[in-house]
Amino acid sequence: MKLLEERIEKDGQVLGENVLKVDSFLNHQVDPMLMDAIGTEFYQLFAGDKPITKILTVESSGIAPAIFTGLKFGVPVVFARKHKSLTLKDDVYSSEVFSFTKQVSNKISISHKFLNQADRVLIIDDFLANGQAIEGLLDIIGQANASLAGVGVVIEKSFQKGRAILDQKGIKVESLARIKKFADGKVIFVEE
Amino acid sequence: MKLLEERIEKDGQVLGENVLKVDSFLNHQVDPMLMDAIGTEFYQLFAGDKPITKILTVESSGIAPAIFTGLKFGVPVVFARKHKSLTLKDDVYSSEVFSFTKQVSNKISISHKFLNQADRVLIIDDFLANGQAIEGLLDIIGQANASLAGVGVVIEKSFQKGRAILDQKGIKVESLARIKKFADGKVIFVEE
Repeated sequence: MKLLEERIEKDGQVLGENVLKVDSFLNHQVDPMLMDAIGTEFYQLFAGDKPITKILTVESSGIAPAIFTGLKFGVPVVFARKHKSLTLKDDVYSSEVFSFTKQVSNKISISHKFLNQADRVLIIDDFLANGQAIEGLLDIIGQANASLAGVGVVIEKSFQKGRAILDQKGIKVESLARIKKFADGKVIFVEE
Repeated sequence: MKLLEERIEKDGQVLGENVLKVDSFLNHQVDPMLMDAIGTEFYQLFAGDKPITKILTVESSGIAPAIFTGLKFGVPVVFARKHKSLTLKDDVYSSEVFSFTKQVSNKISISHKFLNQADRVLIIDDFLANGQAIEGLLDIIGQANASLAGVGVVIEKSFQKGRAILDQKGIKVESLARIKKFADGKVIFVEE
């Protein structure tokens, strides 16, 4: 997605060998117009597949791209919660997710009410790096006996293992920006 | 907002005397079409004021209504983070927020980069109950020397103290649904 790659080049900050900071438009300050365009792009990439009934993501940074994707498909968005709140008392599907960025393990949970075997799910997330968060969501989709339409990722760090893991499972993955590597503080994209 | 009140009556669950569970359309599963309508409503309520440069909210449940409000205004949305991540290393404005629902205290933070004295801010949040989260955002706006256009709330529990606190400060507050009380498991709205 050219608009996104240009934005990453303009506003992204490369920190060391592994970290791309996009907090000016994706995960702290968010550009709603870009998110709207991202929703349209995911719609075009997945609309040809069998009917999608639900968009799944993880709080918090996945919510903005997921909500616009849900709007384009006209379906609900469910975001997995990282902490049980007093008002999330129902039976839940849970999975353990380790975040390399934050160096913590979080349990993510989705209420039984919002996912079942009638659902055909599109996962949307902001980043695909080691794939931990998406593997957690796949685990939950399995527990619910729901089916998976595919995975849509805003920014993929192709040099980390997440993409390979999903490819090996035969999952359809669409990443709007694929990063081959960081070199001298600059982003090198995968050539299509 | 009639559409929202009807949705609360249809899908909200009253738990005890204080808690309204709206996790089927607002804070776990989210209805993007309703959020879009909510963004339009906030735009109409605040567009007549001096130019708004930024929408402010708190992760996670505030993001969906805030992002559509930002889309209608054509301005960025900044969501305060509840936990410092490795990629949020900059200088930040912080404030301590106690959540009665979750019975925990969280530090919320916003990077200096995304809020300054040139900003005129509209706060959007999912709930106004005791007003703790919004007071935390007001504290941060004060630290940044930014100015406040007003506060837009999706659901206000008018019987709790938050609304009165904001009224006493002379802040313009617009709540799309105002709840007077819960009676026999039903929601009684404030009559306009």
